Amino acid sequence: MSDNSFGTLFRVTTWGESHGPAIGCVVDGTPPGIRLAEPDIQQWLDKRRPGTSRFVTQRREPDQVKILSGVFEGKTTGTPISLLIENQDARSRDYAEIKDKFRPGHADYAYWKKYRHRDHRGGGRPSARETAMRVAAGAIARKILGARVRIRGAMIQMGAETIDRGAWRWAQTAKNPFWCPDAKAARRWEAYLDEVRNAGSSVGAVVEITASGVPAGLGAPVYGKLDADLAGAMMGINAVKGVEIGAGMGAAALSGEENADEMRMKGGKVHFLSNHAGGILGGISTGQDIVARFAVKPTSSILTPRRTVTTRGRNATIATKGRHDPCVGIRAVPVGEAMMARVLADHLLRHRGQCG
Amino acid sequence: MSDNSFGTLFRVTTWGESHGPAIGCVVDGTPPGIRLAEPDIQQWLDKRRPGTSRFVTQRREPDQVKILSGVFEGKTTGTPISLLIENQDARSRDYAEIKDKFRPGHADYAYWKKYRHRDHRGGGRPSARETAMRVAAGAIARKILGARVRIRGAMIQMGAETIDRGAWRWAQTAKNPFWCPDAKAARRWEAYLDEVRNAGSSVGAVVEITASGVPAGLGAPVYGKLDADLAGAMMGINAVKGVEIGAGMGAAALSGEENADEMRMKGGKVHFLSNHAGGILGGISTGQDIVARFAVKPTSSILTPRRTVTTRGRNATIATKGRHDPCVGIRAVPVGEAMMARVLADHLLRHRGQCG
Amino acid sequence: MSDNSFGTLFRVTTWGESHGPAIGCVVDGTPPGIRLAEPDIQQWLDKRRPGTSRFVTQRREPDQVKILSGVFEGKTTGTPISLLIENQDARSRDYAEIKDKFRPGHADYAYWKKYRHRDHRGGGRPSARETAMRVAAGAIARKILGARVRIRGAMIQMGAETIDRGAWRWAQTAKNPFWCPDAKAARRWEAYLDEVRNAGSSVGAVVEITASGVPAGLGAPVYGKLDADLAGAMMGINAVKGVEIGAGMGAAALSGEENADEMRMKGGKVHFLSNHAGGILGGISTGQDIVARFAVKPTSSILTPRRTVTTRGRNATIATKGRHDPCVGIRAVPVGEAMMARVLADHLLRHRGQCG
Amino acid sequence: MSDNSFGTLFRVTTWGESHGPAIGCVVDGTPPGIRLAEPDIQQWLDKRRPGTSRFVTQRREPDQVKILSGVFEGKTTGTPISLLIENQDARSRDYAEIKDKFRPGHADYAYWKKYRHRDHRGGGRPSARETAMRVAAGAIARKILGARVRIRGAMIQMGAETIDRGAWRWAQTAKNPFWCPDAKAARRWEAYLDEVRNAGSSVGAVVEITASGVPAGLGAPVYGKLDADLAGAMMGINAVKGVEIGAGMGAAALSGEENADEMRMKGGKVHFLSNHAGGILGGISTGQDIVARFAVKPTSSILTPRRTVTTRGRNATIATKGRHDPCVGIRAVPVGEAMMARVLADHLLRHRGQCG
Repeated sequence: MSDNSFGTLFRVTTWGESHGPAIGCVVDGTPPGIRLAEPDIQQWLDKRRPGTSRFVTQRREPDQVKILSGVFEGKTTGTPISLLIENQDARSRDYAEIKDKFRPGHADYAYWKKYRHRDHRGGGRPSARETAMRVAAGAIARKILGARVRIRGAMIQMGAETIDRGAWRWAQTAKNPFWCPDAKAARRWEAYLDEVRNAGSSVGAVVEITASGVPAGLGAPVYGKLDADLAGAMMGINAVKGVEIGAGMGAAALSGEENADEMRMKGGKVHFLSNHAGGILGGISTGQDIVARFAVKPTSSILTPRRTVTTRGRNATIATKGRHDPCVGIRAVPVGEAMMARVLADHLLRHRGQCG
Repeated sequence: MSDNSFGTLFRVTTWGESHGPAIGCVVDGTPPGIRLAEPDIQQWLDKRRPGTSRFVTQRREPDQVKILSGVFEGKTTGTPISLLIENQDARSRDYAEIKDKFRPGHADYAYWKKYRHRDHRGGGRPSARETAMRVAAGAIARKILGARVRIRGAMIQMGAETIDRGAWRWAQTAKNPFWCPDAKAARRWEAYLDEVRNAGSSVGAVVEITASGVPAGLGAPVYGKLDADLAGAMMGINAVKGVEIGAGMGAAALSGEENADEMRMKGGKVHFLSNHAGGILGGISTGQDIVARFAVKPTSSILTPRRTVTTRGRNATIATKGRHDPCVGIRAVPVGEAMMARVLADHLLRHRGQCG
Repeated sequence: MSDNSFGTLFRVTTWGESHGPAIGCVVDGTPPGIRLAEPDIQQWLDKRRPGTSRFVTQRREPDQVKILSGVFEGKTTGTPISLLIENQDARSRDYAEIKDKFRPGHADYAYWKKYRHRDHRGGGRPSARETAMRVAAGAIARKILGARVRIRGAMIQMGAETIDRGAWRWAQTAKNPFWCPDAKAARRWEAYLDEVRNAGSSVGAVVEITASGVPAGLGAPVYGKLDADLAGAMMGINAVKGVEIGAGMGAAALSGEENADEMRMKGGKVHFLSNHAGGILGGISTGQDIVARFAVKPTSSILTPRRTVTTRGRNATIATKGRHDPCVGIRAVPVGEAMMARVLADHLLRHRGQCG
Repeated sequence: MSDNSFGTLFRVTTWGESHGPAIGCVVDGTPPGIRLAEPDIQQWLDKRRPGTSRFVTQRREPDQVKILSGVFEGKTTGTPISLLIENQDARSRDYAEIKDKFRPGHADYAYWKKYRHRDHRGGGRPSARETAMRVAAGAIARKILGARVRIRGAMIQMGAETIDRGAWRWAQTAKNPFWCPDAKAARRWEAYLDEVRNAGSSVGAVVEITASGVPAGLGAPVYGKLDADLAGAMMGINAVKGVEIGAGMGAAALSGEENADEMRMKGGKVHFLSNHAGGILGGISTGQDIVARFAVKPTSSILTPRRTVTTRGRNATIATKGRHDPCVGIRAVPVGEAMMARVLADHLLRHRGQCG
């Protein structure tokens, strides 16, 4: 099955393994005439890059993106944009020891059951390295959406540690290594994650992505719902186990009165008094902020030995010694932003196709 | 945009409005030679049907499904199966009063922004009536999956009321109007929902769907992930605001040690010691039970007046007097089962296509 | 495989067998707000209907189309339009004799090899009856294209009998049972086809479809080429064996000088001095008339006994006595027009999606 | 619109312009475990490569393909295969003179109308250079089909010069620069094409592609017809204006008796006495040889001045002096073979998905 593309009119196909010569993607469906150069993409990749703090994998990857097609004289041509990043620091030796053992909680068992072969070098295709291409494509999606649409992400929970939503300052997200919008929480998390890291353990996280300035009317009433597509996009990010829109799982505990986002006219425009819907009703955007949240599980690669089995069906124990992230949720923030941008750009073009 | 189909190889296209002459769907991609007759589908529709208890809408719809094509001499032919249900009790007069007012929390505002027109009669296309076709198509999906795969749903939370997971008995789900697996909780919920209903209010719910007997290897590592497709499928059900796989949002608070589902050999087979993954790792099924959960928000149609605006941009208040469900989550249980079946059937065919 | 849909943004899914209770289709992606009622569709179905002259099958089908969804208060809503035609004159007894024998040149052998079962009643799904739905969907496509785009078809060859292109009058196509634009040829064909019909034989045809008023810019340079999509659409019509755009197969014999459609400015607009390209260059429309042609083979159902085999692998002879068309090419004219309309409407929406 | 992919389960996305740094493609959906290395692909690219005789463009491109992903330890992994060829001899200066003039019969006018910008350097995306990637992907398709399926192409007409089908010897196609199966014709064509080339003119061609060993049952009865997909694939090759299956356009002139491919049992197997159908009935393969033919128009780039207009709407004349093919049909032979292989591989996987 040809399962490496995402999107309908703004369609991205990614390729590459973590330990091959390069990774890349083809971005198809971009409107012509949009200004685009490598730095427009590089700035977002730099946010996600490994090795930027002691809290993310120490793999050294400059992740320099190259545009190989689809741009001429500084503008998109409307033809496919091919992006490529060379892999540099692919130390396959780190993985020799776990060659025949499955890592509990890791994709390698399921992958082996599906394809009947095994690329043990860092997981091969299911590696988080593919997310670099999600981010790169997201940069182009932002260009399609234009400056009016603003997409921002934040980590709002690390392990069991939450933030104080009242202390939310977007500016803070750029000032700590966690994209945490609450300055105090960020300081606590630093000590906490050091502990986790030193113990060779790992921890999960919750990430929230907001898009403001999205026009009303994107999406569709039944199967092309904007929230359904966002849920698929976010759940498809490595290690994500839950996705929420607006009130999310908490909506179950609300009464109909609480849940209804009341409306008033204000300066000739419709104004909502709350946003439990997360900006989407019946699968279609309302013009309010789109709010999506997702939970990232802790990395499966930990130092503590775990019980497992081998490819030959024997019991074994395993401890992973490669370079890994104590909290993969950190690097999921720019990835979540990118997926939000891609879904919105796709729906913008789809809406324009049908409704003009 | 052609957004009324779902699935890749097992592809279902639905059509119809709640107050038109009929609703229906076309089920494409079913393998040939499968025994299929109307009662195979009707049994699942009967589970979802309105009017079965005082806790669901009192609209009287026998919901008798007709097979119009794709079956010959009791077996599927491999060509599209057209299903049709006539609408009978479509009382449009109930909606006259709200003709020009948007219901807070309802799709009608977004729908109007998208299409610039309005079918006020029960919401038209975005009505929950479309879910009858989700269930009908799900019945065919179950046939493709065969008897080995068993899909069951349960309501595990109503409003703030949860169940005792230790008291879970699948057999109980058929013995109360809530598909509740905990007999005691079901009794409490009955009183609780009577209160909600009498107050003209509504309440949310959490539904859990389990599929056992699913072979390992379904799904794909990057964009055709089984969990991503399930998330899209579940979030696409009317009124759903959150989706979880396995540990779900709670995965954020786990440590890497807790989250790792350890493995042992047992009788020559791989055996997992826990199932935080919900049966899916790296987007691919592991052979464990697939576990998905989703939160349904409370119905937006309530008796309590809410502030809103009109299509002409004036402030107004609204109270909905039509026939509605105090807890739409109840009828979402068979719909969730059907979407699980459809995603799995689709992935079974997709896997077979690529991997033989 | 879900192979019963056609189109990307204007997407039509058809269903139904020639001898089942009904046939139908779901038309998805139609823009909202377009005036549409049953007579808009019926007028085109009446052109294709069986039993209109002695030269087409005598099956009596009023082919009355019903709109079941997607239209409210006389306008499209943007949601799927479900169309249905009841089958009335389905005389299955005509086919009893050929129950176990394959008709040479007919789909039934290949169909049986694929699906391992057999609906001998008039061929089941592959029957030409499905083309009624192609025509019905084409009527909606014309509405999307608007009055500026004019699509017309003509039969330009019957058996070995060709027309005099110098005598081409579009008005003539409505005045004879063959959609023949050359009045003299039509008279000759009448005698000729009577002979063929009385001999229980059949004959092929060439049909030409022209679309004028198509804006420049529809299509795409590599895989979404307008001519490639037209070729797929036309070759997909029952019994078609060849498709040409512009100069067609004859382009092989041209020199580069002859083939180049020279251009001049005329009244401020680009004017082409010839149209060997058939209105499409590099897969994209140029603004000239789009010209497509296709060859229809003779019906395989003939009275003359032919050698064949049975489903049990025995030699046999077969002669088909059911009601059939001596020249199926006649009824292919409105079908070809419809497919042209559908491909153009789809590309119009696709172009608008990407390029605004 | 995302129009740079082709195929459903075996899906190829190409990218790149003739004068950019590289061209490439992503091949998605390949089954795992197939032996594959660069020489398996290179051998087919070498057949198509420019500069191999005086009859094709003198552009010097070694066209060395690199596999960047999807292959591990000599076998496909089931993940996307990224292929890349660097452009080397991209002499942009050749095109300076025609920067603002449209070439009659060339895509550049339509392209400019669609995208409102212009990459005059060799045509950019619509350049025939993209066909290298069609051939490369076709090499992988052949691997999926296996040794049992044999795909071969031949040029059977150059300009008005045809071959003697009685003199057809497949071995001859490797012995002349035209893939001509008739040795005598090949000798005549050599003199003929020298004349054309020296005159700075160009000429069209007809190419025939045959696939033997294709199992019965590939395709679908209505919209996923094997012949419709082949027609789209062949018409999508640069400069193709007509496509035929089996008897092709000539089917129009046949009687029902002539057209019926009679059947007999022979050694326990079904044997057809003729193949007017070209191996496909009702859109589904019959087990006979699949036979497709297509006409290639003469190159639009010729030395003879032609009347045209400029991007600023002025009349002008143009003569193209770049390096070009006097008969692009020659290089279309390996491209046609590749497209046949890709359509068949896709349908093989699609059939397996639905019918097991």
